[in-house]
Amino acid sequence: MADQQLTSLVEQMTLEEKIAQLIQLAVPFFEGAQESGQITGPMESLGITDEIVSNAGSVLGLAGAEEVIAVQEAHMRKNRLSIPLLMMADIVHGFKTIFPVPLAMGSSWDPVLAERSAEIAAREAAVSGLHVTFAPMVDLVRDPRWGRVMESTGEDPYLNSEFARALVRGFQGDDLSGDVNRLAACVKHFAAYGAGEGGRDYNTVDMSERQLREYYLPAYKAALDEGALMVMTAFNTVDGIPATGNKRLMRDLLRREWGFDGVLISDWGAVKELIPHGVAEDEAEAALRAIEAGVDIEMMTSSYVHHLPQMVRDGRVDESLIDEAVLRILSLKKRLGLFERPVRGADPQAEREFVFCEEHRQAAREAAAKSCVLLKNDSLLPLRGGQRVALIGPFAASGDILGPWSWTGSKEDAVTLEQGLRSKLPSGALAVAEGCSVSAMTRQQLEEAMKTAKEADVIVLALGEDSEMSGEAGSRGFITLPQPQLELVRHLKTLEKPMAAVLFNGRPLDLHGVLDEADAVLEAWFPGSEGGAAIAALLTGETNPSGRLSMSFPYSVGQVPVYYNHYNTGRPKGAPDAQERYVSQYLDIPNEPLLPFGFGLSYTEFENGNMELSAEEMSSEQPLEIKVSVTNAGDMAGEEVVQLYVRDCSGEVVRPVRELKAFRKVLLQPGERQEITFTLTEEQLRYHHSDLSFTSDAGEFDLMVGRNSRDTETRRFRLRK
Amino acid sequence: MADQQLTSLVEQMTLEEKIAQLIQLAVPFFEGAQESGQITGPMESLGITDEIVSNAGSVLGLAGAEEVIAVQEAHMRKNRLSIPLLMMADIVHGFKTIFPVPLAMGSSWDPVLAERSAEIAAREAAVSGLHVTFAPMVDLVRDPRWGRVMESTGEDPYLNSEFARALVRGFQGDDLSGDVNRLAACVKHFAAYGAGEGGRDYNTVDMSERQLREYYLPAYKAALDEGALMVMTAFNTVDGIPATGNKRLMRDLLRREWGFDGVLISDWGAVKELIPHGVAEDEAEAALRAIEAGVDIEMMTSSYVHHLPQMVRDGRVDESLIDEAVLRILSLKKRLGLFERPVRGADPQAEREFVFCEEHRQAAREAAAKSCVLLKNDSLLPLRGGQRVALIGPFAASGDILGPWSWTGSKEDAVTLEQGLRSKLPSGALAVAEGCSVSAMTRQQLEEAMKTAKEADVIVLALGEDSEMSGEAGSRGFITLPQPQLELVRHLKTLEKPMAAVLFNGRPLDLHGVLDEADAVLEAWFPGSEGGAAIAALLTGETNPSGRLSMSFPYSVGQVPVYYNHYNTGRPKGAPDAQERYVSQYLDIPNEPLLPFGFGLSYTEFENGNMELSAEEMSSEQPLEIKVSVTNAGDMAGEEVVQLYVRDCSGEVVRPVRELKAFRKVLLQPGERQEITFTLTEEQLRYHHSDLSFTSDAGEFDLMVGRNSRDTETRRFRLRK
Repeated sequence: MADQQLTSLVEQMTLEEKIAQLIQLAVPFFEGAQESGQITGPMESLGITDEIVSNAGSVLGLAGAEEVIAVQEAHMRKNRLSIPLLMMADIVHGFKTIFPVPLAMGSSWDPVLAERSAEIAAREAAVSGLHVTFAPMVDLVRDPRWGRVMESTGEDPYLNSEFARALVRGFQGDDLSGDVNRLAACVKHFAAYGAGEGGRDYNTVDMSERQLREYYLPAYKAALDEGALMVMTAFNTVDGIPATGNKRLMRDLLRREWGFDGVLISDWGAVKELIPHGVAEDEAEAALRAIEAGVDIEMMTSSYVHHLPQMVRDGRVDESLIDEAVLRILSLKKRLGLFERPVRGADPQAEREFVFCEEHRQAAREAAAKSCVLLKNDSLLPLRGGQRVALIGPFAASGDILGPWSWTGSKEDAVTLEQGLRSKLPSGALAVAEGCSVSAMTRQQLEEAMKTAKEADVIVLALGEDSEMSGEAGSRGFITLPQPQLELVRHLKTLEKPMAAVLFNGRPLDLHGVLDEADAVLEAWFPGSEGGAAIAALLTGETNPSGRLSMSFPYSVGQVPVYYNHYNTGRPKGAPDAQERYVSQYLDIPNEPLLPFGFGLSYTEFENGNMELSAEEMSSEQPLEIKVSVTNAGDMAGEEVVQLYVRDCSGEVVRPVRELKAFRKVLLQPGERQEITFTLTEEQLRYHHSDLSFTSDAGEFDLMVGRNSRDTETRRFRLRK
Repeated sequence: MADQQLTSLVEQMTLEEKIAQLIQLAVPFFEGAQESGQITGPMESLGITDEIVSNAGSVLGLAGAEEVIAVQEAHMRKNRLSIPLLMMADIVHGFKTIFPVPLAMGSSWDPVLAERSAEIAAREAAVSGLHVTFAPMVDLVRDPRWGRVMESTGEDPYLNSEFARALVRGFQGDDLSGDVNRLAACVKHFAAYGAGEGGRDYNTVDMSERQLREYYLPAYKAALDEGALMVMTAFNTVDGIPATGNKRLMRDLLRREWGFDGVLISDWGAVKELIPHGVAEDEAEAALRAIEAGVDIEMMTSSYVHHLPQMVRDGRVDESLIDEAVLRILSLKKRLGLFERPVRGADPQAEREFVFCEEHRQAAREAAAKSCVLLKNDSLLPLRGGQRVALIGPFAASGDILGPWSWTGSKEDAVTLEQGLRSKLPSGALAVAEGCSVSAMTRQQLEEAMKTAKEADVIVLALGEDSEMSGEAGSRGFITLPQPQLELVRHLKTLEKPMAAVLFNGRPLDLHGVLDEADAVLEAWFPGSEGGAAIAALLTGETNPSGRLSMSFPYSVGQVPVYYNHYNTGRPKGAPDAQERYVSQYLDIPNEPLLPFGFGLSYTEFENGNMELSAEEMSSEQPLEIKVSVTNAGDMAGEEVVQLYVRDCSGEVVRPVRELKAFRKVLLQPGERQEITFTLTEEQLRYHHSDLSFTSDAGEFDLMVGRNSRDTETRRFRLRK
């Protein structure tokens, strides 16, 4: 189908037909769906007629090849112009084969791995009938109180951008029209959803345009540069106006400046939420603000279908706004090949073959292993053969390790840590006790745990947050582990046995009470379907941990926000001539996080060194080459992540104390040495000046290479202009 | 002296003489001072020559009539053109007679009282030889982790503006030239110093220009509208550039847009701090950025005197920049009458007469009484005659109740709570024990406290933070009372005796462990020289508490920032159709602060009611009149603060859920009823639109009147355009 045909299709559509394309409805509205007709609660109040449904543009949350085929076929029978439905859903970190949550994937520092995870998720979802996934979520995050930090790859614009690109590539592939095993990607949540005040979900976001451009926007832009076909609006305000009704953000920046011509969809109900936000008096005004801002699809509210027809007739809304939105939606349908093949990849046979297949689970296992971060290890891990292991804690035998946003995944299918360890340890070497539930402890649980632990040589704790404590609307004001779990640790500590803790959680936690008590701590996040198997492989040394934190772990919640790429201030603590009191510090806690960005240990020892710069000066014509060697000085193969940071010593505006510019994850055999070469270009030194121009300044820079954002070696160079 | 004479004076000055006017040096540099010549430490490294000193423009921190006279006279002998020195210092909440800290004064909701406190501070300082005070500090604050919240009047732009005006009036009076008992006011810290990230002093500030204009700027503007003659720069960045080198902020906004033509001074060392901030490579560049931004006086660093002469000669700095700065400084000297009378109000005789005189102490006592906020009272207070009182806690007999920024005040002169109570209670009715020190407890202290308490009918706890835990560079990551004090409370609680807690502190605290344990809680802040006397009068019922919080008390530090005039979000908690989970909330703590803005109890009961609006609509021609009655339904005279809030239900940009627009503090005798009339004009409904234009929108508004920001009665009206 040619572009011209799309235009002519739009011309054939009635105003109502066009506007109905702009609504996205949930499954129960559609004939052929198993839940068909179960329109209750808020859905009932939408006042959706059969006519609207038969002209609707897209469906939210339907998956399953047979059901999708039934719904699409029923729809094609009813739709006057035979316009197929778009099937969209949140395939965030896997479809049925659940991969680690994005914050864990970010900790892998391995975009290729992430790409593969997205490819697999896309394949499973596509054969199950989906066309679009509401992913990647690339919101930069600095506040662990926010539940959705688990859905982001972390606090760094560059690392997030690399993952954004990788995930878009993985979902969409090279040829979305030809490859029905791929999904269109919808990057979200535009913009700055991660910066909600107080870490409270949906809360106000306020920042300077410079901050927005420097830190928050790059990952969205990267996803679009990689070809993401859709964008979702954020729930929050941006500069006082909710994103969903924010013309300046959507029209001026996203569409005009960035040239995005794909489909812009509201987040769930966000158009109507312009009313409680206080920028629309009623649904009609909400519809007006959203369509003027350039929101093409209204998800799960009905302001568009109920008010735009009359507003177009009254001349309050220009019909060309409707036409362009419809055209974008139809273009996406065309791009996905839906006009030729309305059911696209939906294929019950392929579904049975691929979904949750061993190959996919194997990939999820690898991803989980590479996402875990070893936070502490006082010569305890890996476990030695012959040790009797007591596995204790609410997550010892729990399948609640998939994490939020894994709606098609099944906890029952998850490999628990107990199952994982049983398959690695000799029979009889493992004893298991719950110790406490996630948020409560009985005396009996504790007694049983103590008894189990007493008979063991080593204790492995399985602690954490359940999935309800995290994810959307999962904000917390306290970010320690729940008290009963900390109490469990204190009790077990009295036994004076070696103790390793495995943590299942979706956010950086205040780890006091664990990091100081346990001899080893492994951050396993929500590791997905194969979590237990992956962790068991790590604990027993079959695999060597290689994850590195992509978000700082705060000392305590009173330190939030704490992130590595901050400004220096005029009175930095620890400067050579710094006073004791009058410096930027807390009286009672350190400035530094408990664990810094980029941090993670290995079972082997790496030696980084021999840093060499190709010159002391560089220019736009002459990039800088940085050579550094890494040696595996231990006796186990392992992966090191070599990280390169830059600081612009003096800028026209303040520059961060360090910014990640490049990294390399390398696998080294025992004794192996590799030389790594980074190339730093003038382009990488550009930043937004006071007039928001994006250029670099001549002058001095510090170049820092190391194993995390704290432990680096520094060289100075000059940029010549 | 006429303006023309000033210009001609500038013309007579050499370049070095002019630039030396731009430096402010500490006392030891000056002949005649007692510390004269003790140039050590950082001062030594300034490299200040005798020539610079003899041409210097101002002195920092010198007070005492005789010493000031000696220094000024010595200076006049040495200065070629007989240009007198300006004497400046931080007279923040009193000179020798220390008033409650500004956050406490803000809690008085009584600007007239604040004006009087500033007048007294000015008089004491002026007779002691000072010319300028670095006050008022009007930084809006939302983060109790920041130590300097004690120096602000709170979280509300309107209330802060009212206090800003009052304090400027109090310091400067109507006729600064004629009235030598007044000081020039220097409003600080321009701008938004109160918004440092993570509540860490000197830390990065980032916000949208809208946020800056809506919330943070109004109080500075109010101080300038009231005639404040000086402005001090903030330490922090504003939109990525440190305020002290921020041309857009200082030249474009402060000077051009607001028309400020007074003296702009850097905060202590802030010019040189442009280097660690990372916007100047060296002192020369720091000097350049500051002078270009319009900073007239460099405080306590020497970038100007060392680098500007050569830079002017090299043509890198236009001499007109120097000339305008000098002219502003000379104009201030002229305005203060210093050319005619270089020692101005310095007068050893008046100093002996006025400083810390009974009249001033009486005013401080009244201010302290009106600043205390009764947070809880389960029928315990006021104390009844005949009760045996055990006064227990680290602040029972402590003079450390002046608070930070009271350098000329003396703790030894402070009336402690013990002293205050002894003068009110019958002999033998009071027993005192320390219980613990501020941050530690011995067994002996505890035992003694328990023994003392056992013998009493009622326990009065005196708890809090010492002055070092607050104020500049006094940021805290934990905001509860120190653990030993909470432990003391727990122990005393076991005695099951009536228990009242008096709190001495500089910030809103997480009051768990006190508010829930004690039967009555009185927030006394740092009440100043007469604190103990004022509190004793309140505890015994001689005076009725009338303070109201001007800053929200958070539920816990994980809730920060929490403030009353926030946005509603698109998913407000508690809305009629709100879901259980998917609303803006924390899972583990409430959204609401522990104690809201405007909150405070009284010993009597007030009944507010009979709210009447003059019309259902208003316009710019026809303001709205709001009548409300207040009745003292109890049996004790008392003051109520009637508060009026407005919400713009739907704006072009989001409007706060409520904004304080007016308030009235009224004294009512038992049984007395007063009718209060507020007038609301269209001007008060204006706000900054997306293009930053400052206008109002036609539409619906909610008008809320009540006793605090939470407990209000609502009426709706329309603004017609």
